[in-house]
Amino acid sequence: MVRDEEETRGGGGHVKKIGIADTTFARYDMYGSARDELEAIGTGFTIERYTVPGIKDLAIACQRLIKGGCDIVLALGMPGPEPIDKQCADQASRAILDVEIKHDVHILEVFVHEDECSSDKDLALLADRRAREHAVNAYDLLFRREKLQRAAGTGQREGHDDAGSLRR
Amino acid sequence: MVRDEEETRGGGGHVKKIGIADTTFARYDMYGSARDELEAIGTGFTIERYTVPGIKDLAIACQRLIKGGCDIVLALGMPGPEPIDKQCADQASRAILDVEIKHDVHILEVFVHEDECSSDKDLALLADRRAREHAVNAYDLLFRREKLQRAAGTGQREGHDDAGSLRR
Amino acid sequence: MVRDEEETRGGGGHVKKIGIADTTFARYDMYGSARDELEAIGTGFTIERYTVPGIKDLAIACQRLIKGGCDIVLALGMPGPEPIDKQCADQASRAILDVEIKHDVHILEVFVHEDECSSDKDLALLADRRAREHAVNAYDLLFRREKLQRAAGTGQREGHDDAGSLRR
Amino acid sequence: MVRDEEETRGGGGHVKKIGIADTTFARYDMYGSARDELEAIGTGFTIERYTVPGIKDLAIACQRLIKGGCDIVLALGMPGPEPIDKQCADQASRAILDVEIKHDVHILEVFVHEDECSSDKDLALLADRRAREHAVNAYDLLFRREKLQRAAGTGQREGHDDAGSLRR
Amino acid sequence: MVRDEEETRGGGGHVKKIGIADTTFARYDMYGSARDELEAIGTGFTIERYTVPGIKDLAIACQRLIKGGCDIVLALGMPGPEPIDKQCADQASRAILDVEIKHDVHILEVFVHEDECSSDKDLALLADRRAREHAVNAYDLLFRREKLQRAAGTGQREGHDDAGSLRR
Repeated sequence: MVRDEEETRGGGGHVKKIGIADTTFARYDMYGSARDELEAIGTGFTIERYTVPGIKDLAIACQRLIKGGCDIVLALGMPGPEPIDKQCADQASRAILDVEIKHDVHILEVFVHEDECSSDKDLALLADRRAREHAVNAYDLLFRREKLQRAAGTGQREGHDDAGSLRR
Repeated sequence: MVRDEEETRGGGGHVKKIGIADTTFARYDMYGSARDELEAIGTGFTIERYTVPGIKDLAIACQRLIKGGCDIVLALGMPGPEPIDKQCADQASRAILDVEIKHDVHILEVFVHEDECSSDKDLALLADRRAREHAVNAYDLLFRREKLQRAAGTGQREGHDDAGSLRR
Repeated sequence: MVRDEEETRGGGGHVKKIGIADTTFARYDMYGSARDELEAIGTGFTIERYTVPGIKDLAIACQRLIKGGCDIVLALGMPGPEPIDKQCADQASRAILDVEIKHDVHILEVFVHEDECSSDKDLALLADRRAREHAVNAYDLLFRREKLQRAAGTGQREGHDDAGSLRR
Repeated sequence: MVRDEEETRGGGGHVKKIGIADTTFARYDMYGSARDELEAIGTGFTIERYTVPGIKDLAIACQRLIKGGCDIVLALGMPGPEPIDKQCADQASRAILDVEIKHDVHILEVFVHEDECSSDKDLALLADRRAREHAVNAYDLLFRREKLQRAAGTGQREGHDDAGSLRR
Repeated sequence: MVRDEEETRGGGGHVKKIGIADTTFARYDMYGSARDELEAIGTGFTIERYTVPGIKDLAIACQRLIKGGCDIVLALGMPGPEPIDKQCADQASRAILDVEIKHDVHILEVFVHEDECSSDKDLALLADRRAREHAVNAYDLLFRREKLQRAAGTGQREGHDDAGSLRR
């Protein structure tokens, strides 16, 4: 993730609302990480949370956060490691995309797959880091889109080391 | 599943309606388990049921329950063990998600896959337990959402032992 | 399939319309089986038919039958045995589900996969039996939904022997 | 394909419009085959064409042809042989189905997969034949639907020898 | 890619707007390639850009570009090499198609999969070339559709050598 001086701040009065949807299925408090990171980056926004049982319930949680006035939403989830879990994650992702397009509000899907790491400790660290880095993305989309533009094509990887640009 | 003292009860007069859609294809009376559990948790709601042949028919059953005034719906099904059954379950899940987003009413998908257990007895126990634990989720979403919020990130698993939180 | 004395008959005047969509790709006249079975079960309905080339054309055929006033539709098809055929069947099924949810009219998908049987004779028997048993389902959804409710969780299998209920 | 005397001709004045969408990605002029066949079958229609780069662009091409007044559309494409090509073909097919259902106008998907034949010559012959036989299907859906009905369940295969009906 | 004298130029006054959506996840500045190529082809258009974190965010970026008045959009992305990346690319593609059909505006998906090449250098060259060749497609769809029509069925391949027409 590129971190940068702040640029376009919401300033000028209108306070934004950031929604965070999370699940009881997840094995890490990704909400805590995202909220902590957002509060460290800046001000000009409030946070609203909606907790559901599993990832398939995230799409409607996002929709309700949007209907409640959120300007952007983070959808936090930790799909299991089995093939059927990948199928469920796929369904959840598509429904989240449907809600995003229907309401024309950005929803950043922040999924950590249980089979991305071999130890619980690494998985917890990944969940924390990915939630934090996507929280920065949410902030950037809301307040300083030019920062994302400058990072275009640079191989950013949320939760892992960045891949970097290709050399020709 | 976290079980807790009741908190926000529907109270104040408005009786909620919980819809339950089930199938003749399923090999266990998951409706009975869900209804039994709901009646044991609390009051303030009525139950409406819609039985269809198979899981692909659950989406329209859920839609009709919602059009009939249900505030939340449980979609109970038992997909078969073959690859084609996974494909059918995937179609059914997506249609259920479409209905949920279209009407902005929670539908909890409660599927038990026949290949989750090696014996009929275990499969029956899983079907019973999962239906009961998702019935509690439905109740929580309707009457006490703060209970779900407190359980966020704690690795809840409906029908199995909870996975618990990751240690860092 | 549970067969039963008839119960709720459409009676009282309003004649229902049952739509049947079928294909030239199928290798068995499933329409004939469905119509024959429907006529044997009862009265109170008329049948309307729409034949298309392949299973991907069934969704629009169903939609046109519904727009023509059908109260329920049977979508009859026989997908081929190759992986690409499964992909096509998946597309067809999803489009049928989309039409069903859009119009809130039951569409019973009656697909017989060519690789479900090893001989042509068995495949023909399966196609005949499955079409007939889903014709009964259509009749039940239209005229006697309580019969389906009594069969919930009993492991009904259209075209094959029923799987039965799980013992605990 | 069943070929037959013509029956219901559009007659009575209203000239129909048949849309044909094709791609620069395809390796055979399937448009030429379809147009040639249509012109050989009968009259009472005009043809409108929309060429796009690849199969994923066919859905919007079909939509634009429909918005331009087409009564039926042929979507011609030749997906590549790799797994990622199957994924792209799947996306293209679903989008085509979405357009078909949205506008309630038949779109016949005429895809020839590059791995259906082992030689370029056979692939060209298949592309030609399939385009022609689906052109006849389009004509039949528009002008003589009873011909399709008579061929229901007879195992028609566009581009290959027909599979025929199953014997019991 | 067929390159040709320009033909139908937007001429006559109305300046078109071409949208380009890209990601910080991509490892190559495909936007730069597309813009450079567009500027080399002709005039009569302006370019608007929208950068998002990953490919799943491209669909809403495209929608916002369209709502901002773009007449056509290029969606540039570089999905990773793992199976889960293919799944994400599939979700992204479908959402892009949904936006395209909803707004009836062409969106050219320009994805370069990381596993298409074995070296970083080749991957960079492919990303550059594919972005450029699809930029030409966008120009052609906007200003000279007859050029695409002349190339129909000739096996055009963006980023690779053309496959050419099949010989019979």
